[in-house]
Amino acid sequence: MAEFHSKIRTIQWSDNCSKMVDQTLFPYEYKYVDIKGGQEMFDAIRNMIVRGAPAIGIAGAHGIVLYAMEIAKETSSREEFVNKLLEKADYMKTSRPTAVNLMWAVEKQKEIIKNSKADINGIIEELKQNGIKLENEDIEINKKIGDYGAEVVPKGATILTHCNAGALATVGYGTALGVVRSAYANDNTIQVFADETRPRQQGARITTLELTMDGIPTTLITDGMCSYFMKKGMIDIVVVGADRIAANGDTANKIGTYTVAIAAKYHNVPFYIAAPLSTIDTSIKTGDEIIIEERSREEVTHINGKTICADGVNIINPGFDVTPHELIAGIITEVGILRPNYNESIKKAFEK
Amino acid sequence: MAEFHSKIRTIQWSDNCSKMVDQTLFPYEYKYVDIKGGQEMFDAIRNMIVRGAPAIGIAGAHGIVLYAMEIAKETSSREEFVNKLLEKADYMKTSRPTAVNLMWAVEKQKEIIKNSKADINGIIEELKQNGIKLENEDIEINKKIGDYGAEVVPKGATILTHCNAGALATVGYGTALGVVRSAYANDNTIQVFADETRPRQQGARITTLELTMDGIPTTLITDGMCSYFMKKGMIDIVVVGADRIAANGDTANKIGTYTVAIAAKYHNVPFYIAAPLSTIDTSIKTGDEIIIEERSREEVTHINGKTICADGVNIINPGFDVTPHELIAGIITEVGILRPNYNESIKKAFEK
Repeated sequence: MAEFHSKIRTIQWSDNCSKMVDQTLFPYEYKYVDIKGGQEMFDAIRNMIVRGAPAIGIAGAHGIVLYAMEIAKETSSREEFVNKLLEKADYMKTSRPTAVNLMWAVEKQKEIIKNSKADINGIIEELKQNGIKLENEDIEINKKIGDYGAEVVPKGATILTHCNAGALATVGYGTALGVVRSAYANDNTIQVFADETRPRQQGARITTLELTMDGIPTTLITDGMCSYFMKKGMIDIVVVGADRIAANGDTANKIGTYTVAIAAKYHNVPFYIAAPLSTIDTSIKTGDEIIIEERSREEVTHINGKTICADGVNIINPGFDVTPHELIAGIITEVGILRPNYNESIKKAFEK
Repeated sequence: MAEFHSKIRTIQWSDNCSKMVDQTLFPYEYKYVDIKGGQEMFDAIRNMIVRGAPAIGIAGAHGIVLYAMEIAKETSSREEFVNKLLEKADYMKTSRPTAVNLMWAVEKQKEIIKNSKADINGIIEELKQNGIKLENEDIEINKKIGDYGAEVVPKGATILTHCNAGALATVGYGTALGVVRSAYANDNTIQVFADETRPRQQGARITTLELTMDGIPTTLITDGMCSYFMKKGMIDIVVVGADRIAANGDTANKIGTYTVAIAAKYHNVPFYIAAPLSTIDTSIKTGDEIIIEERSREEVTHINGKTICADGVNIINPGFDVTPHELIAGIITEVGILRPNYNESIKKAFEK
């Protein structure tokens, strides 16, 4: 299987700081910023300079290293260092309280702080190395997802995707767009259709940017157009990411995903989820248990700072929807493609 | 059946000129302009100060009156007047060459010019009266559509609509939104969900404006959200307009309509078309014969003058899609609601 080399590296520990792409500038600029302090990282996460659950997790891990380096300058007491750092670690988690990966990565760092037998400098070094390890693991998992997914992409296929489950939501390869990258490495006649993904337009602003940077042919369509192209036979497969997957395979993802899944079913186009096992929450039985976050009115009423509708209009803005398992052809993970019955295949995947 | 009084009057012959709402200002302003000359009307149609097939038709009819008044000042020869006016009438048709209603309304005026026995002033008066007659007929037809449609709107229903088939696309009542108005007159507990309708956002810019002006509760949603709300049981019926209907009921309408129709079918929500018989083209057998207009790249890539995506992206921008008849619960016309089998019900409707 050929290997794909992406130009994108969303976040990386380098020269004693966290280097990340400033995602608030998309699609106008692709520019790196160096985050050099703990509070600076807290603000970068809160202000969405970094976004995408896996990328936020790494940012949080880096943030703990940055805090550790700062605290080490203030004190030479190991005990005081550890206590202050654990406090800052808990504070870091509040930068985006709903981001599960942030909690997870910060907890990984906390375990090191608590369990290390080293001195202050030794702890800092362990935290750095753990951050780098988490980066590498994320890329490795994405590449495995990509390679498994590439096997179900037909020769010369057009792949429809929704939102951005790409390199720019992860460390540097992507889940749904990881499948695209691996498929493209094997067959450079494939192409991508990217849904705009209103209201926040992640498909337009982010997916088109990262795919054109990597030289993968990409067509931007508006969210209502998918059925038109499916009917014309112009879409061969749908691959999207996931925010949370229930034990029965029901999948929460960016609002609009469910509409694409229904259109795909109507046209017999296979619809796949691409996500690491860490996205599967076996503690919830079905999608009905997933609480959908309601987001701000302005995301719908304003684009580029200007209103697009009448003042007196009502807004309901669910951030996610749930695609029921019966619309999903497979869930592409780092241990292979899970197939229905998902209750069984998911259970097996975790036993591996 | 209660009557609904709309605040909207899109176009009206008044004080020897054509008074129309300037639709280029939506949703920021609702302002009337007086069109006082033939060339001024030509430009108003071309620059989309007036839009919506029925409204454009009336604008064309008014334009012929304005040309007639100008030519009458230049010549007292009846023959020269008639010849020059017929020339201008054909020129007027080129202001928006694909608008069927424009051709139709201008032809109606040409018949008067050719068949009148009156002198110059008499012809002008006949053209004026015919323009006013066309206005009134449009409103009457819309009200009949509205009243028939209101019968299938459940008590307290939420009606989903796509694009703008409203008062602002017609003279002053609307087709799909005519159904909304008539339903609201009977039952003020109904409400509307309006799809944004990317790329041109007619749902956001126009539908929310005209419904909130008329005091009808309206929620703006993005195009991908419809399935989410249908699954939650929050949408009871879909009513949209039509650009062209084939003899078998297949219906061309604004891009995105077909996706809504598929979602409605999946959730057992009845999906209706509201359109006058003049929209039905019995010369085409099925939707496959309808040629879909491809529109400009910028409609997708730019909103409010700013780009929303990467430069290197490809765009395909179909202006319309075709909803197959099997997804349509009924076609609401001025002679009643046509039901499947549409080949038969459409044939019968034209025999009335």
